[in-house]
Amino acid sequence: MKMADRLSRIQPFRVMELLARAAEHEAAGHKVVHLEVGEPDFDTCEPVSAAGIAALQRGATKYTPALGIPELREAIGGYYEQRDVQVDPSRIVVTAGASGGLLLLASALLNPGEKVLVTDPGYPCNEVFAAAVGAEAQKVPVLAENRYQPTWAQLDEAWGESVRGALLASPANPTGTLVPREELERICKGIEGRGFLIMDEIYQGLVYNQAEYDTVLEIDPGAIVLQSFSKYFGMTGWRLGWVVVPDALVDGVTRLAQNLFISPPTVAQHAAVAAFSPAAMAENESRRVKFAQRHQRLLHGLESLGLEVPVCSDGAFYLYADVSSSGLDSMTFCTRLLDEFHVACTPGCDFGDHQAERMARFSFTADLSEIELALERIAQAMDVFRQG
Amino acid sequence: MKMADRLSRIQPFRVMELLARAAEHEAAGHKVVHLEVGEPDFDTCEPVSAAGIAALQRGATKYTPALGIPELREAIGGYYEQRDVQVDPSRIVVTAGASGGLLLLASALLNPGEKVLVTDPGYPCNEVFAAAVGAEAQKVPVLAENRYQPTWAQLDEAWGESVRGALLASPANPTGTLVPREELERICKGIEGRGFLIMDEIYQGLVYNQAEYDTVLEIDPGAIVLQSFSKYFGMTGWRLGWVVVPDALVDGVTRLAQNLFISPPTVAQHAAVAAFSPAAMAENESRRVKFAQRHQRLLHGLESLGLEVPVCSDGAFYLYADVSSSGLDSMTFCTRLLDEFHVACTPGCDFGDHQAERMARFSFTADLSEIELALERIAQAMDVFRQG
Repeated sequence: MKMADRLSRIQPFRVMELLARAAEHEAAGHKVVHLEVGEPDFDTCEPVSAAGIAALQRGATKYTPALGIPELREAIGGYYEQRDVQVDPSRIVVTAGASGGLLLLASALLNPGEKVLVTDPGYPCNEVFAAAVGAEAQKVPVLAENRYQPTWAQLDEAWGESVRGALLASPANPTGTLVPREELERICKGIEGRGFLIMDEIYQGLVYNQAEYDTVLEIDPGAIVLQSFSKYFGMTGWRLGWVVVPDALVDGVTRLAQNLFISPPTVAQHAAVAAFSPAAMAENESRRVKFAQRHQRLLHGLESLGLEVPVCSDGAFYLYADVSSSGLDSMTFCTRLLDEFHVACTPGCDFGDHQAERMARFSFTADLSEIELALERIAQAMDVFRQG
Repeated sequence: MKMADRLSRIQPFRVMELLARAAEHEAAGHKVVHLEVGEPDFDTCEPVSAAGIAALQRGATKYTPALGIPELREAIGGYYEQRDVQVDPSRIVVTAGASGGLLLLASALLNPGEKVLVTDPGYPCNEVFAAAVGAEAQKVPVLAENRYQPTWAQLDEAWGESVRGALLASPANPTGTLVPREELERICKGIEGRGFLIMDEIYQGLVYNQAEYDTVLEIDPGAIVLQSFSKYFGMTGWRLGWVVVPDALVDGVTRLAQNLFISPPTVAQHAAVAAFSPAAMAENESRRVKFAQRHQRLLHGLESLGLEVPVCSDGAFYLYADVSSSGLDSMTFCTRLLDEFHVACTPGCDFGDHQAERMARFSFTADLSEIELALERIAQAMDVFRQG
């Protein structure tokens, strides 16, 4: 059976091999510390799960409107309103995770053969969404001196004839950095009239310093926002997210959503309404504080071991560290750290090519005691690795 | 903002306009009988909802493996085994509804510019999945004399250089017919070595006569099957389905699923395991019997009113009727039937072009008393329409 050409361009995630090896170590009785996971270790908070149970108990299991139930779209609008950003619920499209949002946007905006600018390093699936619709993601290397975010000058230079827009992230994966506000203003102004700007804000809310802005919509009301209930709201397995689109896109995205999804998962939608309740938001905030503590501990721990973090992340739950002082390339570093010291992290090659051989992503989706244990083990590993 | 060309080729469903008008009539205090809905009127059955609640209570809300939790893939394998069909769980991919399955398959099998054969009439979203990946659905008109299913001779004739495979359905939407076994054998043999055959079996189990086969896999173990928990299992809003793929596709589909979906909805997966329990299967069977009663009542009712059903459906919950004896084209018929007599059904143009102007789909997703009421109203309507 002949498969589509795009399959040959999809690399398996290297971290999946590492996960399989981690499982083998665990099966052999070893305790593995997991700093490779892109998922909060906290369970979905109680008010959200309770709302899901209540929805099931009253039989809310039928299809919903393709763009989501009105009460959830209004609750999302209210979330922006609390941040002094006006987003009419008619522009809010509830999706099957941010993944569903990426598919909707790629198919609404990209013809076969066209290009979207993405960052290197960046979220690796972005390329596959572009490839799925027959388009291509063109990687723009981002530099530590620019906080691992693109400048308008870089985007402008990369913007060839077949480029239709840019897909950026703030905070970004794997670097956790925000696009600095001044640069974001230049980017929004530069892109206006030339194409689309999609801002992946799935880590919005998980920010550990005073942010210069909450959402790109403060700066450019015409930007497209990609959002998720997975990260700040702790609802990964529910597969729910949303996108905010300009008025001009609502009709097209509606027709696509009807055809490609019928509707987002119903119980998840009813549960997500409760994610904005005061009780849930208090829990989300208390978890953010815990992530902030881990962030500091892991940052200082890695640096004290000689694993430099060129740019301290602003948010998300990641630190992107340079492991070259170990004397190993990052894939070897990650493999040996797991096999010999039972700590899992993700090699840079899963996020792109630029400096990937020296970088690794450490997640702080494990509690402080696990992070302490990981740091002890990494200290031993560095001693061994440096001896060659 | 420039949108992708594929958007201009996606027609809105006409039934959506009718649904909006139906809501207006209901808001004005009128009772509308809904025979336009492609969703069982029954709630998700108790064992399944209870399993969903239990999953939430134990906090099963994280990501799962991209192809689904092992216990569900094994339960699906067991479902086939009970039908004397061996399907290794490694070939079973749990998806976000059959919609998720269609996207996976389209992106695994179709390059931009390539074609897949589909039926006219058929499930209208098929074309949009092809367009999403830059490919094209080529419609093959199906005839009443062939039970609204394609013959191998038709597919063979339509199979041009850029055709990569065929996507058929058995039972089909909107006609409810199965591909006759002999013809299916010819189709499987003819396609072998030439391309792929995807069989949409989302209405499997909802069959009202003795079927000649349960699944295409009995006839061609290399066929690809698209399935859903929405119809026979009554789990529409949970957004869960599965595909069965040949071994050669497993690796590619796995990489695509990891990138495009991360994982199917978690609570739905745990609930779906219970959909195969004896208690749930007994309930599914009792609902099938109710659908069978409605099927007969609606069939005889429509025909007694002069609305010919050229081919009685074998399954699904649809009858595809010729409304031309009303003297109206089917869009006018549906619009006037709703506006003047408050009965909703779906015009043929939502399913294709072939004879669409004379055909309409009547769903029996309403109970017998509603069907009786609809028939009374349609009788009045026919009197009025025929008087011109």
